[in-house]
Amino acid sequence: MWTVTEDDLPNIAIGAGILGTGGGGNPYIGQLRARQAMRQWGPVTVLSPHELSDDARVICVGGIGAPTVGIEKVRDLQSYHALRAIEDFVGEKATALISNEIGGSNSVEPLIAAAKAGLPVVDADGMGRAFPEFQMKTFFVYGVPCCPMAVADEKGNSIVVRETISPVWAEKLARAATIQMGCVACYAVAPMTREQVIRTAVPNSLTLARNLGHAVQRARDAGHDPLEAILETCPGRILFTGKVVDVDRRTTSGFARGSLTIEGIDASHDQVMLIDFQNENLVARVDGQIVCTVPDLICAVTTDTGEPVTTELMRYGLRVAVLGFPAPELWSTPEGLAVAGPRAFGYDTDYVPLAV
Amino acid sequence: MWTVTEDDLPNIAIGAGILGTGGGGNPYIGQLRARQAMRQWGPVTVLSPHELSDDARVICVGGIGAPTVGIEKVRDLQSYHALRAIEDFVGEKATALISNEIGGSNSVEPLIAAAKAGLPVVDADGMGRAFPEFQMKTFFVYGVPCCPMAVADEKGNSIVVRETISPVWAEKLARAATIQMGCVACYAVAPMTREQVIRTAVPNSLTLARNLGHAVQRARDAGHDPLEAILETCPGRILFTGKVVDVDRRTTSGFARGSLTIEGIDASHDQVMLIDFQNENLVARVDGQIVCTVPDLICAVTTDTGEPVTTELMRYGLRVAVLGFPAPELWSTPEGLAVAGPRAFGYDTDYVPLAV
Repeated sequence: MWTVTEDDLPNIAIGAGILGTGGGGNPYIGQLRARQAMRQWGPVTVLSPHELSDDARVICVGGIGAPTVGIEKVRDLQSYHALRAIEDFVGEKATALISNEIGGSNSVEPLIAAAKAGLPVVDADGMGRAFPEFQMKTFFVYGVPCCPMAVADEKGNSIVVRETISPVWAEKLARAATIQMGCVACYAVAPMTREQVIRTAVPNSLTLARNLGHAVQRARDAGHDPLEAILETCPGRILFTGKVVDVDRRTTSGFARGSLTIEGIDASHDQVMLIDFQNENLVARVDGQIVCTVPDLICAVTTDTGEPVTTELMRYGLRVAVLGFPAPELWSTPEGLAVAGPRAFGYDTDYVPLAV
Repeated sequence: MWTVTEDDLPNIAIGAGILGTGGGGNPYIGQLRARQAMRQWGPVTVLSPHELSDDARVICVGGIGAPTVGIEKVRDLQSYHALRAIEDFVGEKATALISNEIGGSNSVEPLIAAAKAGLPVVDADGMGRAFPEFQMKTFFVYGVPCCPMAVADEKGNSIVVRETISPVWAEKLARAATIQMGCVACYAVAPMTREQVIRTAVPNSLTLARNLGHAVQRARDAGHDPLEAILETCPGRILFTGKVVDVDRRTTSGFARGSLTIEGIDASHDQVMLIDFQNENLVARVDGQIVCTVPDLICAVTTDTGEPVTTELMRYGLRVAVLGFPAPELWSTPEGLAVAGPRAFGYDTDYVPLAV
């Protein structure tokens, strides 16, 4: 058990920016919103899954939409409204909240609703990274029902996706509502039990995000290489280093989709990396050869400060190191890969685990 | 109180085809579905609003989508599933069902769900015709809440639009779900009281549909003019008579939209009528001059048999008479016109009531 305070938020923002693989919602805006919530309603207790009580009811909350829109149309208390909507629907109250994905602003979305509701959050999430689609959660891969789930906007509109024939249908219906709501909304899923959280969540992820950010900050302060600090905290490797020379980005069907091109410098000299993204980075190729795919993490950080660069802020001229991290184990099973492997995103290629 | 039997269905199909002003879902397919339901579960009792008990809970059910899709992807028991979904959500059971609109297959949609559920239907509806959008109901114009409402498809998916800031938002969210569901779905709205039905529904409309169809059938059998029989049963007038020479129809944003062009014959010789439609016929012009607009009814029937021709079946070469009928009084108020007058559909013209 620990307590998230305002002071942790800058570290979480950096760590969740890295784990977000380009998406998850802008971490800086998430940080500002979480700061405001904590100033108003106080710090939030973090429980490990094993610290949950036997009768715990854990509600997963998160943002849904395109991060390109989220930086202009900033969220407010939609996750709290979605929480109340699903509590009303199921006739049960949450005893704790859990993050849908530890990436970007979604790492702190439960903190905001939890601060307002006076609840603890669980030190775990449903991805151990970020993924663009609702169904891509370890919870649902391992048998937690994805419905009912509520979607709420900032205006006062809310729906409940009541029953679906598959988690992909929940995504379709929630995304369609989100687009109508202005491409930015929040959701909350019916409560999970302690056993479900322990069995299906990626543990320790809020702590990991905080530690990653802390390591980066310490390295910056000490004049050390922040990339080394990241890789010491979270095992992975540098896939490529270069200058962003093109960003092809469009907001379509409720997502930020596109690709970015990076011309190599230093060890990557004379090579070109192309990264496809759908909110998150999906596949990285060097000179046409795939070097990393989902569910492994592909994260661009600035070479000098180790600052993660998210999809919506990626731009020409940035010097970035592209880091690769192995996916959490829950994703590397056949069930996990069926939901979030490269073929789930339409790529005709098998998953080859990143060698670290 | 009367009982709808299989024998009434062909008459209701004709009458609801006329009152449907081109839309409401294909009446012939609706008739077949209602026939099947009655064969399986028996005839359905029809109550006038004043015959409802004081503690009546009246649920409005209807189809939503594009009629162009509805003739290929035929509905099954979605209205029954939507009924059960909204009953579950509000924790109350319906004691009677009511039609959302008396046009097309929506005239019989409540009969299907009522036959299966063993409930009566009310001899009234929320439009006295058909309109393309969910919020265009006299119920909502006169203060009945439009939410919560449930939308269900044939696969087993359902959502509840829980709360919205306006009826138009309920339409947006329900339509977005419907499009995902394949452009054909059914919905059910939270229960109304007896007082709400009496005050806000268009009364007697199932009887009117049946009587209209009966008059047409009798005229056909007797070799009389079916158009005269229609106008004797439901006061209105012939706006135009001609041959359909062009249909510009596309299925977009969950609707069948477009226009049709009719070249005049007989009294309309040398003139051209253009009708714009969005599922239903919205505005009729003769040689560029508006002759009838929503909320008044614009109905095309074949000149020889008085058979109504709906949007999705309109085609080149048909000889049609275009009939105009005054809208039910509930639509001719400022509140009614704000929701379903020509300006509500984007036309920069005031409503001029049809002179009969």
